[in-house]
Amino acid sequence: MKKFEEITTETEKIFDGKIVKLQVDSVTLPDGNTSKREIIKHPGAVAIIALTEDNKILFVEQYRKALEKSIIEIPAGKLEGVEDKPAVRAKRELEEETGYTTDKLEWVTSFYTSPGFADELVHLYFTDELVQMEDKVAGDDDEFVELMELTVDEAEQMVKEQRIHDAKTAYAVLFLKLKGV
Amino acid sequence: MKKFEEITTETEKIFDGKIVKLQVDSVTLPDGNTSKREIIKHPGAVAIIALTEDNKILFVEQYRKALEKSIIEIPAGKLEGVEDKPAVRAKRELEEETGYTTDKLEWVTSFYTSPGFADELVHLYFTDELVQMEDKVAGDDDEFVELMELTVDEAEQMVKEQRIHDAKTAYAVLFLKLKGV
Repeated sequence: MKKFEEITTETEKIFDGKIVKLQVDSVTLPDGNTSKREIIKHPGAVAIIALTEDNKILFVEQYRKALEKSIIEIPAGKLEGVEDKPAVRAKRELEEETGYTTDKLEWVTSFYTSPGFADELVHLYFTDELVQMEDKVAGDDDEFVELMELTVDEAEQMVKEQRIHDAKTAYAVLFLKLKGV
Repeated sequence: MKKFEEITTETEKIFDGKIVKLQVDSVTLPDGNTSKREIIKHPGAVAIIALTEDNKILFVEQYRKALEKSIIEIPAGKLEGVEDKPAVRAKRELEEETGYTTDKLEWVTSFYTSPGFADELVHLYFTDELVQMEDKVAGDDDEFVELMELTVDEAEQMVKEQRIHDAKTAYAVLFLKLKGV
């Protein structure tokens, strides 16, 4: 028995989409009472903290329909199924979204983004060995992104002004500050 | 027109739950093509970075049904509707989950946790002026949490071992390291 485990008595599958699944689990709580849990299943994602030779961080601006606005994030992308390897996907997303590639991606950490309702796990990588690619790599055809290169001071200022307000990106800025960038 | 704006042509409402809503938006992309966006609506949440007098960080361990395991997080809770004020909710969650209260909560930042598919915004607060409460404040009756107090070094070690692997909590550990805790 796991600590405070909630035992599933019924799973109602509500939605099975291209990216997320939604189910409602009926559960028995540790005290014997019952409750319902709304759960989003997500394939997981990768994100890349990428530092150029002249100590600039790579960001991309893109429209996020869930927010109805464009926001500034570090390069990222979701895993395409369980076979998709995070490190391979991270390199691919870096190439597609920034036009840079690398042969050195260090794993930094992996974290759940919204454990209260979703199982999305983001794998975070770091590179400071970027190589500009000659040919652009085609990405998803429904994705429009604009590359930005900012110093850590500029990025920090944008966090303060809430122009950067994305969890993985806010984490990346602190990570680089701690590195002394 | 917002940058890279995606124009909604149809919204299909799939689920309206106790916590999340799910809809699928049909959109027209900047290049005129069409796509679909699966979107989770969430009321938003608060989280508290709380430091005791002897420089320990407050964490709670709780079962997260979406992950089918207990994880270690900083105290947090979702907003109860649009009227709920983040700073008030943050104080309340601190009291309910830890048995401490405070009259000084500093706003640190607010970030979207999963902008690719959800609009959840987490408001993060900091306090280092904790007062132990005499009487326990009752929390949600379907919530079971265990309080932990760890030094920043212990917490960092747990991030390394992936025993702490929650975005807001990983952020909190870096935030305190940068503060020199």
